[in-house]
Amino acid sequence: MRVYNFAAGPSTLPLEVIKEAQAELLDFAGTGMSVMEISHRDKAYEAVVCEAEALVRELLGVPEDYAVIFVQGGASQQFAAVPLNLMHSGKADYIVTGNFAKKAWQEGQIYGEANKIGDSSDRTYTYIPDVDSLTYTDGADYVHITSNNTIFGTRYTKFPKCKAPLVADMSSEIFSRKINVADFGVIYAGAQKNLAPAGVTIVIAKRSLIQEPLAICPTMLKWKVQDENKSLYNTPPAFSIYIANLVLRNLKKNGGIAAINEINEYKAGLLYDFIDNSKLYKNNVEKEFRSIMNVPFVTGSEELDAKFVAEAKKAGLVSLKGHRIVGGMRASIYNAMPVDGVKALIEFMKKFETENR
Amino acid sequence: MRVYNFAAGPSTLPLEVIKEAQAELLDFAGTGMSVMEISHRDKAYEAVVCEAEALVRELLGVPEDYAVIFVQGGASQQFAAVPLNLMHSGKADYIVTGNFAKKAWQEGQIYGEANKIGDSSDRTYTYIPDVDSLTYTDGADYVHITSNNTIFGTRYTKFPKCKAPLVADMSSEIFSRKINVADFGVIYAGAQKNLAPAGVTIVIAKRSLIQEPLAICPTMLKWKVQDENKSLYNTPPAFSIYIANLVLRNLKKNGGIAAINEINEYKAGLLYDFIDNSKLYKNNVEKEFRSIMNVPFVTGSEELDAKFVAEAKKAGLVSLKGHRIVGGMRASIYNAMPVDGVKALIEFMKKFETENR
Repeated sequence: MRVYNFAAGPSTLPLEVIKEAQAELLDFAGTGMSVMEISHRDKAYEAVVCEAEALVRELLGVPEDYAVIFVQGGASQQFAAVPLNLMHSGKADYIVTGNFAKKAWQEGQIYGEANKIGDSSDRTYTYIPDVDSLTYTDGADYVHITSNNTIFGTRYTKFPKCKAPLVADMSSEIFSRKINVADFGVIYAGAQKNLAPAGVTIVIAKRSLIQEPLAICPTMLKWKVQDENKSLYNTPPAFSIYIANLVLRNLKKNGGIAAINEINEYKAGLLYDFIDNSKLYKNNVEKEFRSIMNVPFVTGSEELDAKFVAEAKKAGLVSLKGHRIVGGMRASIYNAMPVDGVKALIEFMKKFETENR
Repeated sequence: MRVYNFAAGPSTLPLEVIKEAQAELLDFAGTGMSVMEISHRDKAYEAVVCEAEALVRELLGVPEDYAVIFVQGGASQQFAAVPLNLMHSGKADYIVTGNFAKKAWQEGQIYGEANKIGDSSDRTYTYIPDVDSLTYTDGADYVHITSNNTIFGTRYTKFPKCKAPLVADMSSEIFSRKINVADFGVIYAGAQKNLAPAGVTIVIAKRSLIQEPLAICPTMLKWKVQDENKSLYNTPPAFSIYIANLVLRNLKKNGGIAAINEINEYKAGLLYDFIDNSKLYKNNVEKEFRSIMNVPFVTGSEELDAKFVAEAKKAGLVSLKGHRIVGGMRASIYNAMPVDGVKALIEFMKKFETENR
């Protein structure tokens, strides 16, 4: 039986995509090889990388003067790549709105003056600081934000309008809502939430910003090198990119970002409405900043939380345990989570509430 | 029809492994999720990483005081990780025996004095320098070698006995022959040749050597961090590790390193014997240093080489084109290439020779 998987990442993928991958796992595109085995220099595979890049450009409306590259590893690696590619003057601003935002800021400190200009830890990261009233550092090389905070369930509803290029980690929300790429200098996102199995990160970067990585930057972290080589400087994480391409095709077929954004708002709306009207469950995030991807909630009792997670699992609703930092529960409802999954969760929550008044 | 895939990497995987992955792609270990979707913190997935580590230890006889970790990306990324983890005194030795050895050496120069103490480019990398007559730098932090040279088809038959820790890139031969891990300070290997789909690299490192990475080392490149977190510091390239585990199980079931080494010697022997006795084909590598994984050969005519590659492809023998640096042909006959594949190649070579005298 297929369960509803609410994991924060790796996370659920469209069922059709998994079935498609399964059907051709032994014979990719009539080559007589698995896509796991084919040379990354084979035209049949190069076509995959090419198509995936084109789909990213089309779906997000990426301007021509931006690179779109697929790089090895996860977003955590990009926490170093960001300063190593951009920190020329040796200073940058960071807005710390959660666990990964903090890690990015800490990594920035290895390479220069990483100024924490905003911080929402005072109220356990349940809100996003007002970006219009922050003090941005003069001459900073960039301003770094985490646009959606996976653990705390918040998201930016407006983005900083700063002089320095805006760099955004969009790992847990890319392709979930409309964004204007031109508002950003760099966008990066680990794939394992809305895009593909773990192991690849997508980087969208204004080319004029990435021409001079720091001298100490490892070659493999140089965005410019990957851009010049169309993500094929060395062997890429080929299977993850292949699945990403299938997911992007699927997204396009189903109406692209506008369509999925509407569904995502609907799914999140159902869940938040139910929580807000419940006597048992509570979501602590300020309404304005609620994520439509990650919905944390608590009962107020650790024992009851644990019971909830265990019983939900038996009911085929898995990976609902909140991150160890915050406890409670968290439902990650990424693009690939069907509306029916959210409805099933709400039904279970109702039943559990009745049984545990 | 399944072809025989002689690609240098990504490359052929055991057919049973692909079938096994295919069979459970929708439902991993009865979890109701694909292995591509399951959280890396799920016990069912943690068990995979644990088992893969244990199998590496068992198959290679890794001493207890060595870390065995799975890291993101390919060997090229480790070209930077090596100095960033080990270059404390600021100098290291490199033996340059091919393209990737050279890249590793160039990357080393970013971080300190990377001395090229051996170089076989004078005869197009067709041999390995005599490691006993090289001058090793006093006080070097390590000596770096590439134990098997994928493009040029050479391998070390004895390893340097040097004071400094020996660091070996074994990407294109790991698990193919018996090695004594204790002779090395660090062994690393990109997975996409003998182990798994691209996207993960295995690092085996003496723990006492990796305790103090350089201050500028990105967190994700710190071997110590990955060791302390059992390769789960952040989201790992989960699918690649999963396949690696299936491949390692398969290797163990079939008799481990000793058994596969024998088969590899047999396969390579068949091919080299045929080439040496042919009037058309030639392998230019000094016999002592011939790789049993990568077998380059030429006809002496570029046109005939191109014809060979094209006709072989039609006959279901694919990816035989040599690397663009050397031209000609190359048959990569990794662990997963069946004996029948090598025999089929030889039969084709015979026929082609008869037709093109």
